[in-house]
Amino acid sequence: MSSTFIDPKKQLAILTRGTVEIIPEGSLLTKLERSYKTNTPLRVKAGFDPTAPDLHLGHTVLIQKMKQFQDFGHDVIFLIGDFTGMIGDPSGKTSMRKAMTQEEVDANAKTYKDQIFSILDPDKTTVGFNSKWMNAMSAAQLIQLSTHYTVARMLERDDFQKRYNNQSPISIREFMYPLVQGYDSVALKADIELGGNDQKFNLLVGRELQKAFGLEPQTILTVPLLEGTDGVAKMSKSLNNYIGIAESAKDIFGKIMSISDDLMVKYFELLSDISAQDLVTLQSDMQSGKAHPRDIKIKLAKELVSRFHSAENAEMEHQSFITQFSNKKAPEDRILVDLPNSESKWVDFLSDSLSDLNKSKGEYRRLIKQKAIRLFSNVQLDRETIIEDAEGSTQGLEKGMLIKIGKRVWAEIK
Amino acid sequence: MSSTFIDPKKQLAILTRGTVEIIPEGSLLTKLERSYKTNTPLRVKAGFDPTAPDLHLGHTVLIQKMKQFQDFGHDVIFLIGDFTGMIGDPSGKTSMRKAMTQEEVDANAKTYKDQIFSILDPDKTTVGFNSKWMNAMSAAQLIQLSTHYTVARMLERDDFQKRYNNQSPISIREFMYPLVQGYDSVALKADIELGGNDQKFNLLVGRELQKAFGLEPQTILTVPLLEGTDGVAKMSKSLNNYIGIAESAKDIFGKIMSISDDLMVKYFELLSDISAQDLVTLQSDMQSGKAHPRDIKIKLAKELVSRFHSAENAEMEHQSFITQFSNKKAPEDRILVDLPNSESKWVDFLSDSLSDLNKSKGEYRRLIKQKAIRLFSNVQLDRETIIEDAEGSTQGLEKGMLIKIGKRVWAEIK
Repeated sequence: MSSTFIDPKKQLAILTRGTVEIIPEGSLLTKLERSYKTNTPLRVKAGFDPTAPDLHLGHTVLIQKMKQFQDFGHDVIFLIGDFTGMIGDPSGKTSMRKAMTQEEVDANAKTYKDQIFSILDPDKTTVGFNSKWMNAMSAAQLIQLSTHYTVARMLERDDFQKRYNNQSPISIREFMYPLVQGYDSVALKADIELGGNDQKFNLLVGRELQKAFGLEPQTILTVPLLEGTDGVAKMSKSLNNYIGIAESAKDIFGKIMSISDDLMVKYFELLSDISAQDLVTLQSDMQSGKAHPRDIKIKLAKELVSRFHSAENAEMEHQSFITQFSNKKAPEDRILVDLPNSESKWVDFLSDSLSDLNKSKGEYRRLIKQKAIRLFSNVQLDRETIIEDAEGSTQGLEKGMLIKIGKRVWAEIK
Repeated sequence: MSSTFIDPKKQLAILTRGTVEIIPEGSLLTKLERSYKTNTPLRVKAGFDPTAPDLHLGHTVLIQKMKQFQDFGHDVIFLIGDFTGMIGDPSGKTSMRKAMTQEEVDANAKTYKDQIFSILDPDKTTVGFNSKWMNAMSAAQLIQLSTHYTVARMLERDDFQKRYNNQSPISIREFMYPLVQGYDSVALKADIELGGNDQKFNLLVGRELQKAFGLEPQTILTVPLLEGTDGVAKMSKSLNNYIGIAESAKDIFGKIMSISDDLMVKYFELLSDISAQDLVTLQSDMQSGKAHPRDIKIKLAKELVSRFHSAENAEMEHQSFITQFSNKKAPEDRILVDLPNSESKWVDFLSDSLSDLNKSKGEYRRLIKQKAIRLFSNVQLDRETIIEDAEGSTQGLEKGMLIKIGKRVWAEIK
């Protein structure tokens, strides 16, 4: 019988691209070869936290990796850690935090599905919930589970070690999470677990528990954490440096165009579907000056808008971008504001007139300090004035003048 | 309405005798006064580990304290940690413990009851099992419970700290034990918890958890650990330095008579029912030479035999003791052994002939080293020979000779 799978070595070449670690080394190829020989798909697990159902590009690094496994015919399991959500946040003191209701869990799961199926094939994806086995687990069974890991090994985890050394409290509850997450791999009999690089410790616990339960330990495949649009911290909703996959075509396009050239190269490597060879060509073209970084950025922005919206949307945003920036003309989409009275300070005028943007005065002060509030005398953008004093007067503003706030928001004095 | 309880200060005087600590200080009197005013008994919990169901005098220090509370009209709860027994108490241990099965725990629990009612009034004693609430607890609830204690505080416990520093593994399971034991106080709404001094940490966890669950924290009352008959280590079955309360009148009497004079005074303080005043008199009589230590030891031995057997038994053992030791005549109760062949070494002869004693050759070698194997030519004990070479020949043994093994076992060559 011939296998329905392609050559394991060919799979390996694609699957290892953009990964940080494969543990143990060599075990992925061994499993791919066995899968090929026995014509059996591998069970590939990736866990997701249900408290943040708004997926951003950071999550898609992992989901793209799942898609590669899926495209090769393996079984991918998108595991939603709803048990964690059902217990609530550990900071509660005297009583159980309000648990997420089944409806809330279902609603979040639906939101997840709506998003992930823009990448994964719904017909070939198992969406699982760890409440399925964790709600049925007794305290005695959890205690039994906790036999299989030591305090010292748990404290080896970087963040625990730091907190312990800094005398910052670690609740014993927090030791339970890696165990529960690890047990998910036992329950699912996972062959492979995918995760962000920061999840490595927890994924290793899964291996230990599988061994303790007499199963073959999973192979761990970690992917890098995507930096946020600021190019500094990990992409995260709370740091507001993210690009959500459910955001509008306009926002995705605009945010990609705003990142630095260095960051763009990283994004290309981790997010784009282009081949490794094309990536090398693209980088050398940019270095030799043959290609302008802005044009390469447009290529990435269009690829991502196409993925999460459509090729038509991507083309539209591209055209809009050309009109807006390349032709040196203000965009049509402008907030109309009244002429301020002569007494107004810039910071007051901006926060009052642009209340829809929901920015504090502090934020406007920061933008002014960053030279990110600019004044143009007309739509041709002939004359540009950088506003440099938040407390300075708006005197001199006239009807028809344009104000650019940050990188993409425009206002017009009506 | 007048209270059915006696004056709280009078209760306090008795209840604090022989305790190590009362935490927080003063809280016991406060609770006794409230009990008196509201005419409500206090709920007094003491937990017992079902791994060692043969109660010995060490346990009775605590049980006597329970009896005092019971005699004053309070509710005492003899809690058998059958659920915790399956975890294994890590207190004072230097390595991981093996967990017990449900069957072992059940069998041991029954043995406990048979024994404690020689001290406590069965009609006024609640015997509880923590499996009642712990078997019903879900993993989610246990995780919730584990919120209320930190890793650092758990590692402050002496034995954990030592093991952690020595890189001796501590399973996360062992962190669960103090939490479960503490939760028992929540489930029982205990006003008071009694425990050995080595249990102080676990009892304090109970206070924390009660607070976390919105209950008034229990008062902790610790009693000293009774030294074993060797006068060195804590009395414990595994160290074979114990006097079991289910042992024969003969064994209890004999073992008490074998302890040192110093240890006897401690035993009197912790085990005897004599008044504080009588104890002082007894000590001064002994120091002044007015009373012989042996006679005081007899007094203690008779009190304990009376407690666990009967006054008649105590009197019989006393008479037998006089015959056996005071009259310098070998006791009637002797093991009859065959004359060894001429090739025999002492160690082989003893272990073969006295197989009922279940002692290893190593133990006989130790006894010989300790000069505890003695040879007598006849029942009048005229001529005594100390056996000094375990590998030495038994040549010279004759019919009718007596061998004394340790302090109380006698054999006769038939």
